[in-house]
Amino acid sequence: MINQELCFFSVFFVFKSTNMTVDKSKSTAILLIHCPDKQGLLALVTEFINSNNGNILYLDQHVDREEGLFYMRVEWDLANFNIPKDKIKDYFSTLIAQTHQMTFELHFSEEKPRMAIFVSKMSHCLFDLLARYTAGEWNVEIPLIISNHPDMADVARRFDIEYHMFPVTKDNKAELEAQEIALMERYKIDFIVLARYMQIISDEFITHYPNRIINIHHSFLPAFVGAKPYHAAYQRGVKIIGATSHYVTTELDAGPIIKQDVTRISHKDTVNDLVGKGRDLEKIVLSKAVSKHIDHKILVYNNRTVVFS
Amino acid sequence: MINQELCFFSVFFVFKSTNMTVDKSKSTAILLIHCPDKQGLLALVTEFINSNNGNILYLDQHVDREEGLFYMRVEWDLANFNIPKDKIKDYFSTLIAQTHQMTFELHFSEEKPRMAIFVSKMSHCLFDLLARYTAGEWNVEIPLIISNHPDMADVARRFDIEYHMFPVTKDNKAELEAQEIALMERYKIDFIVLARYMQIISDEFITHYPNRIINIHHSFLPAFVGAKPYHAAYQRGVKIIGATSHYVTTELDAGPIIKQDVTRISHKDTVNDLVGKGRDLEKIVLSKAVSKHIDHKILVYNNRTVVFS
Amino acid sequence: MINQELCFFSVFFVFKSTNMTVDKSKSTAILLIHCPDKQGLLALVTEFINSNNGNILYLDQHVDREEGLFYMRVEWDLANFNIPKDKIKDYFSTLIAQTHQMTFELHFSEEKPRMAIFVSKMSHCLFDLLARYTAGEWNVEIPLIISNHPDMADVARRFDIEYHMFPVTKDNKAELEAQEIALMERYKIDFIVLARYMQIISDEFITHYPNRIINIHHSFLPAFVGAKPYHAAYQRGVKIIGATSHYVTTELDAGPIIKQDVTRISHKDTVNDLVGKGRDLEKIVLSKAVSKHIDHKILVYNNRTVVFS
Amino acid sequence: MINQELCFFSVFFVFKSTNMTVDKSKSTAILLIHCPDKQGLLALVTEFINSNNGNILYLDQHVDREEGLFYMRVEWDLANFNIPKDKIKDYFSTLIAQTHQMTFELHFSEEKPRMAIFVSKMSHCLFDLLARYTAGEWNVEIPLIISNHPDMADVARRFDIEYHMFPVTKDNKAELEAQEIALMERYKIDFIVLARYMQIISDEFITHYPNRIINIHHSFLPAFVGAKPYHAAYQRGVKIIGATSHYVTTELDAGPIIKQDVTRISHKDTVNDLVGKGRDLEKIVLSKAVSKHIDHKILVYNNRTVVFS
Repeated sequence: MINQELCFFSVFFVFKSTNMTVDKSKSTAILLIHCPDKQGLLALVTEFINSNNGNILYLDQHVDREEGLFYMRVEWDLANFNIPKDKIKDYFSTLIAQTHQMTFELHFSEEKPRMAIFVSKMSHCLFDLLARYTAGEWNVEIPLIISNHPDMADVARRFDIEYHMFPVTKDNKAELEAQEIALMERYKIDFIVLARYMQIISDEFITHYPNRIINIHHSFLPAFVGAKPYHAAYQRGVKIIGATSHYVTTELDAGPIIKQDVTRISHKDTVNDLVGKGRDLEKIVLSKAVSKHIDHKILVYNNRTVVFS
Repeated sequence: MINQELCFFSVFFVFKSTNMTVDKSKSTAILLIHCPDKQGLLALVTEFINSNNGNILYLDQHVDREEGLFYMRVEWDLANFNIPKDKIKDYFSTLIAQTHQMTFELHFSEEKPRMAIFVSKMSHCLFDLLARYTAGEWNVEIPLIISNHPDMADVARRFDIEYHMFPVTKDNKAELEAQEIALMERYKIDFIVLARYMQIISDEFITHYPNRIINIHHSFLPAFVGAKPYHAAYQRGVKIIGATSHYVTTELDAGPIIKQDVTRISHKDTVNDLVGKGRDLEKIVLSKAVSKHIDHKILVYNNRTVVFS
Repeated sequence: MINQELCFFSVFFVFKSTNMTVDKSKSTAILLIHCPDKQGLLALVTEFINSNNGNILYLDQHVDREEGLFYMRVEWDLANFNIPKDKIKDYFSTLIAQTHQMTFELHFSEEKPRMAIFVSKMSHCLFDLLARYTAGEWNVEIPLIISNHPDMADVARRFDIEYHMFPVTKDNKAELEAQEIALMERYKIDFIVLARYMQIISDEFITHYPNRIINIHHSFLPAFVGAKPYHAAYQRGVKIIGATSHYVTTELDAGPIIKQDVTRISHKDTVNDLVGKGRDLEKIVLSKAVSKHIDHKILVYNNRTVVFS
Repeated sequence: MINQELCFFSVFFVFKSTNMTVDKSKSTAILLIHCPDKQGLLALVTEFINSNNGNILYLDQHVDREEGLFYMRVEWDLANFNIPKDKIKDYFSTLIAQTHQMTFELHFSEEKPRMAIFVSKMSHCLFDLLARYTAGEWNVEIPLIISNHPDMADVARRFDIEYHMFPVTKDNKAELEAQEIALMERYKIDFIVLARYMQIISDEFITHYPNRIINIHHSFLPAFVGAKPYHAAYQRGVKIIGATSHYVTTELDAGPIIKQDVTRISHKDTVNDLVGKGRDLEKIVLSKAVSKHIDHKILVYNNRTVVFS
């Protein structure tokens, strides 16, 4: 029989390399654009990339004809691209974006976004995020978990991630949130995931991170805004429950929706059953939204999202 | 080549007999019960049937432990049942129901409920109901279609069903609703299906038919109550839309929910796309609710439904 | 009270014009392309349209990077297009397609495809197709219903569509299929929908209509190929059943899949329950596939489909 | 600012007590029965419990009328039950089961089933099982993880569970499987969960654990039996993929199905995308099956399952 202790030598980065779904060996640029629609925009952008010897790996675009808006996401291989990486933004802005009133973001595959998780007492979303992170599914760094309770410290320890507790109340909120922001700035956090964080965040905090705080709400929004949505769903007698991930805005549970999913329930289900079924929804919906954010596949406009495939 | 005219001789009742899913050859009794829960209720009811030589074909029960309520549906073969059909109600009431504060309904498979359809200008739900009716899927009679517009008269004619138009407005509503009720009483209508009937019904009308008016609302209730839910869903930027069938109560879109279903949408979908995708949801959800009602499989309590399988 | 007879004057084309989801007032061209992928194809095609003053209303493209294939569907307004309608095919072929080994189809919104329905004894898919047709949902003509049984003649009559019966058996199949093809050629039929047509079609017949016969199979293919899939699903004890619409090829139930959907079942469901639940799946899945075909949104390659949104 | 180290004192069992969905404070008995159907069985069993002062907390039953079989699950509070716990089996067997040819299992809520996990190189199912276990969702003990690879040892270590590696090959399978069984007997393992264990198990091994090995297969069975189902699904061009949890029998991927779920895919999805989408299905479907098994809610008969709600 193989000795058990022997196995513990399995090195960590061997393990990390499993489960990869995206070929990240290539150095690529990602361009996200939105602007007023007009003829020839798509040709213009693809021509900019092609004529400079960029090989397009992914292209998706959307025209909202009712509002006359053009949305585009394009990713190309930088291997033989003529424009130096640090000049692309400047060139694209001067040659194309300014003329066509484009709002754009430019990202590079080498940049790893840095994410902080906020959590309270429930572990299901936290475990799901950290399991994917540990398995190497995502191009992200998670240096920091922040909580208003001590309960999840043990989970953080299992994944070797720093856990900072800020016991926020109404009275100390302004002060502790300032500390949280300072901490996140020190760790160069790019975006925040609220993994069932059960504490209202102030407008000041939210304004610091526009379209960069992802929440999971345990209902099919806009139904059952606010506290205790499973109780409300039970009382109303709905036959389907849901979960919604969205960017946080200053209006409660009203930010741009990224992802939703639902599951069937029946008269046999108690509130506790809804809570149990809801957990599976919540964690998957949140992780899918986080995944889209990490891959720069979300554009927000008019409080709605374009989520590219 | 076979002559086309020849085929038109195919008689109507041959066609009617296809697609049957339930064996309706047996004469059965259906008992629906709800009452305060206590030990032994299930044994009591099944013993009543068994000891009188009734062969139970279907039994489903539910105990709501939070509210302490017992719900049951049982169906049995009357072939060798000792109690005469017209005495069952009396016997069950005296021997069991009164002692245990049971509210109950007794139905017989030979009774065909009579249903009226209310419709406005859209045909998809109407066609779906009539196609099932014509195919013999349901144990129901549909002698009557009522509308506030002339548009669907042609559909009614195709299915040889009487079509009565009442051009209801706010001003004449009291008078025309009285005429509608008189008409339905003349036709012995048991329940009403609102197949996208776009006219608010008065409280007086609703009170005439408690838990006997089935509506289809084109949203995932309680989200998007009221008019133009697809427009509201589009504006909110939801990623899933739904449809809800419910019993009509005097509070708008707030009655007991019978059935819900949903479908995914994306940023690519215009309001018109939502309307199109919604139509498929609406007709199936409404027909499933109607089917459960016809089969006496719905119990309403506290504005929620128990829907037996 | 409004007299019922009065309503029957409602004219047919008034009724036809309801329920439209697509703006078909514009005269548009639709181009479907597939070819080996290389840089600049998208720019090339959009430039061809833009530079000739065509306003693009819809564009979707897909690159299969594993197989190195480019797929595209583009639709544009012909109002100010410089190239005359009857020359577009020629110009596009000469200027672009030949150089880049493109296979392409060109369609115009004014052309109404002509569809024949084949049916046997079950009415649910037939009713669903005809209800959509009658409501004006689709840009299609349905001049012809063909059957191997007389049962559905009554449904055809309700919708004023010719019904031709060919009592096909193994022995007379060659002869009767030849008559069917002759009939369809006389009626200029473009494509065929098998709406639960329970008779194997010969390879000769299929070869006449490559990627132009749409079938609905009542299982989640490739599970339960062949006869009696609901019985097989019941025997296997699956917890979900499905329906699959696909183009018919000479290999049974193995053609390119267009659309699939599923529904949950449980141990409580008998084979008859599966048949009943399956009917709702079948009709919606088939109609969705037909809709995509009518809108020229399907490309077939390597026995798989690209279905544009 | 709160010091991070401080938080690590949060004790483990505090954490364990969150997320509970079932009230496990009560001492209950669970009876699972199947037998030939006849009149009065339900009354007989409920009467046995009621007359001995057992308070029924849950009852679900199913009659398969085609095969004439009766299935039942009943759970009752033992607090005031007249028959001593260790005599219930004997009494029920003598008084009821033998007379009515009942096959039955009796379980008590205090008994914690002991589960072993088999895993190979992929972490997603393993993490999901261990996250639920750690959160206290399940009434189970997991003393043991067994693998044919070293890769998952690190995950086991994070959750403080023993990890034993048996590098099984065709040649050494008989010997190593014997060691595995010996190890599991030493740890009193009741049932086994194959969490993407990619090694065929011998018939001898399977026969040791009838209906006690739960597998997750990464397809919608019976479609795509065997190796590489995502590749096969991609090749076939299906529009929906699935996952299936089932009890392992000696015929590959053909055992009784416990739970299935599916998700939509499109022509845009590569094989890698299918693998990614499939992971989310697999872990949830497997965990739901394990949950039902732990709660004694599954009855197997004729290679199919009755799964109680």
